[in-house]
Amino acid sequence: MPKDVITTRAKDYNQWYLDIVREADMAEVAEVVKGCIVFKPNGYAIWEMMQRELDNRIKETGHSNVYFPLLIPESFLRREAQHVEGFAPEVAVVTHAGGEKLTEPYVIRPTSETIIGYFMAKWIRSYRDLPLLLNQWANVMRWELRTRPFLRTTEFLWSEGHTAHATEAEAERETLMILHDVYADFAEQVMAVPVIRGLKTEQEKFAGALRSYCIEAMMQDGRALQAGTSHNLGQNFAKAFDITYTDQNNTVQHCWTTSWGVSTRLIGALIMTHSDDEGLVIPPRLAPTQVVLVPIYKNEAERTKVREAVARITADWKGRLRFKIDDRDNLTPGFKFNEWELKGVPVRVEVGPKDVEKGSVALARRDVPGREGKSFVPQDGLTERIVVLLEEIQAALFARALAFREQHSAFVSTYDELKQQIERGFAWAYWDGNDEDEKRIQDETRATIRCIPLEQPGTPGTCVYTGRPTTRQVVFARAY
Amino acid sequence: MPKDVITTRAKDYNQWYLDIVREADMAEVAEVVKGCIVFKPNGYAIWEMMQRELDNRIKETGHSNVYFPLLIPESFLRREAQHVEGFAPEVAVVTHAGGEKLTEPYVIRPTSETIIGYFMAKWIRSYRDLPLLLNQWANVMRWELRTRPFLRTTEFLWSEGHTAHATEAEAERETLMILHDVYADFAEQVMAVPVIRGLKTEQEKFAGALRSYCIEAMMQDGRALQAGTSHNLGQNFAKAFDITYTDQNNTVQHCWTTSWGVSTRLIGALIMTHSDDEGLVIPPRLAPTQVVLVPIYKNEAERTKVREAVARITADWKGRLRFKIDDRDNLTPGFKFNEWELKGVPVRVEVGPKDVEKGSVALARRDVPGREGKSFVPQDGLTERIVVLLEEIQAALFARALAFREQHSAFVSTYDELKQQIERGFAWAYWDGNDEDEKRIQDETRATIRCIPLEQPGTPGTCVYTGRPTTRQVVFARAY
Repeated sequence: MPKDVITTRAKDYNQWYLDIVREADMAEVAEVVKGCIVFKPNGYAIWEMMQRELDNRIKETGHSNVYFPLLIPESFLRREAQHVEGFAPEVAVVTHAGGEKLTEPYVIRPTSETIIGYFMAKWIRSYRDLPLLLNQWANVMRWELRTRPFLRTTEFLWSEGHTAHATEAEAERETLMILHDVYADFAEQVMAVPVIRGLKTEQEKFAGALRSYCIEAMMQDGRALQAGTSHNLGQNFAKAFDITYTDQNNTVQHCWTTSWGVSTRLIGALIMTHSDDEGLVIPPRLAPTQVVLVPIYKNEAERTKVREAVARITADWKGRLRFKIDDRDNLTPGFKFNEWELKGVPVRVEVGPKDVEKGSVALARRDVPGREGKSFVPQDGLTERIVVLLEEIQAALFARALAFREQHSAFVSTYDELKQQIERGFAWAYWDGNDEDEKRIQDETRATIRCIPLEQPGTPGTCVYTGRPTTRQVVFARAY
Repeated sequence: MPKDVITTRAKDYNQWYLDIVREADMAEVAEVVKGCIVFKPNGYAIWEMMQRELDNRIKETGHSNVYFPLLIPESFLRREAQHVEGFAPEVAVVTHAGGEKLTEPYVIRPTSETIIGYFMAKWIRSYRDLPLLLNQWANVMRWELRTRPFLRTTEFLWSEGHTAHATEAEAERETLMILHDVYADFAEQVMAVPVIRGLKTEQEKFAGALRSYCIEAMMQDGRALQAGTSHNLGQNFAKAFDITYTDQNNTVQHCWTTSWGVSTRLIGALIMTHSDDEGLVIPPRLAPTQVVLVPIYKNEAERTKVREAVARITADWKGRLRFKIDDRDNLTPGFKFNEWELKGVPVRVEVGPKDVEKGSVALARRDVPGREGKSFVPQDGLTERIVVLLEEIQAALFARALAFREQHSAFVSTYDELKQQIERGFAWAYWDGNDEDEKRIQDETRATIRCIPLEQPGTPGTCVYTGRPTTRQVVFARAY
């Protein structure tokens, strides 16, 4: 397998991404189903790791998993005015079933606020039924025109949370708790992807939300990727679906609801944050295989000797490390090294006859390719050393991604500076424009306001576009 | 909550089932989406337990998880003649998407042999690519006329395995390995449901299969429930989708493929095997909550004392037991006991002020309701005692279900005996009839041949219907 199967990032960033998806054998475009991909074992295994980590956090914060129907009566979508406007153009419609034309068509869920809202209205009677904290792992469908593996596909997999509360303050607390404690924590601690926590502008918010919050990450081409959203839906869906409760004073009130989601696009974010020109790089906490051990030998005698050492070395790995021993006979060590590099396994251990004699092994870090990342260490204490190394790699990947983001972020005070900076990455700017100003900037620069960061300097300045005084800063960027 | 919220089995078995589903808060019929249910937290949690156990077995036997598109081009379904005949009448069809009429409609997958076959043909080149062992967790849709929660719903959740092999023998080995080591083992060891492993007749086999194997369980009304199927698809799909490989002699050959599946109908099988007139009964290995502890007190002083004891008693439960402490303040102990009985938690621990003084607790087994299942035991050694008790309950539930099946099974040697026996349960009979004989019996008795058991007596006898000599026995029953 020649090294140049992967286009360099410098040469063609988009092609680099597609090459990684293909060469790490993560997914394949399903050209017979518009805009869909097949999740292959290496791609799906990462999603399973993500699911496990997210599911733990979702359950630990008091939510229960449920499953609602895939199909939604078409009329449900129309009940919330902003919602239908946002989603009607991109739904897939079931008009026939069981050999007959349906009296009312169904849409395949693009998201489930409407169908879940309908049932919440049936289930919630009194303040004692609140909060209602639900989550579902499901497939959803949005008929997108331009698609790209993981990042934007017509069908995708996701977790969608839906909750109902007695007061606006509680709904807001839930929305922000999910943003901070579940999504940002997962992105930074597990994916090693630094994110900006922020509020979406009116133009960018979810169709039907009062306020949308998001986490935004920077990819290696300087573009932004929205990695998760959490919406305070206010009473919009509660009014559309009549979700009410009787409070302590026996008065009937509308609930306040929230919804939030993260999807398989996170796999795209993972690839574009950490990978390099050699292939995929997976942070250890998400890696389905954290360590691959490659035995090296030239003849049967060496093989026996090496195999004994490998059994001894790996004896206490089970339960502590997720590992593979690559003892395929028909392939050279070099071929194997290359393959595992392409596939992003964080640590490689090599054991040859000389290592057996010396009581050592060679240890290679995927995040530092080539000689620099290779060391020769004793077999004694190896397991503990690898456990520590994996945490080092996890931290190093986060630090590298954070440094990259900082190097590609700048404060801009004029529209010209803004135009220049969005060619490089994130442009932080004071902002006091309106929706129309925002649209005009988007038309002229293809950049959008990614978010109004929750952490604000608080100092006064002047709006980058209108020149009006304001204390509010926003982040502009081109986005996936 | 009065006890009579659940209809007795003797009075109305079908209503009993629906009452359990409702009162244990497992699911709700989604009347706005034809034949669908909402999986509520208590129902979905059981599915998650099942998924974990099945997924472990599927992975341990060498399969990788993947995910293929929900939508299948309509023409794919037509490529295999028996397959289209079996599934075309019950598919849901997407004719419009993204605001436009599609040039070719898609069907929502009723099962994925066709779309996966299409990709297998692209991925498999040589014998080195075989076997290809895939599984996916997915939702599927079959437009059924008569539906019932969990047992038969238009949309359901399942695991579907799809594999490709070089030879018929290997495909057959895979088909039977899944039947025995994954499905039957899971049903008996985890669900505590005894099953008969058998071969389906031609009439009952999967649309497109060479041979279909199944596991069949007996419900408490004596009817059979097919709890899992494993199909040797022969070369039918390989020929329809051109799934070929080059063998060691450089000759191009068609592959042999298999498929197999278990679904959320297993939740229905679980309910109908173990539950009683008091509510749901869940075997400990599948119970999301294995133990509920109910503290009992009348005043603040008692409450403080009991709470201290509870903290001490449960100190080492985490990681060893899945448990809940029901310290809700506004409900009586009796109400709580009743609720957890309805919901099927295997073991209840009661701790009151007298228990604190005596250093004891009350222990109640869900599988033996009332006084008989209650004992008073020392707090010392309680955790170990509960761990052992849970395994005892697991074994007792299996033994009870097995005894029930044996009591409701009989060998029949005449058609009249067969007609009588299927009113009670399973009828074992010698069989040498043809497809038409089988259909006639079904029309006359509403019973079908559930399977040709893999374990056969091997002794000669005469066919229950034709009187011809044969050594083959089959099992007749009415089925869900």
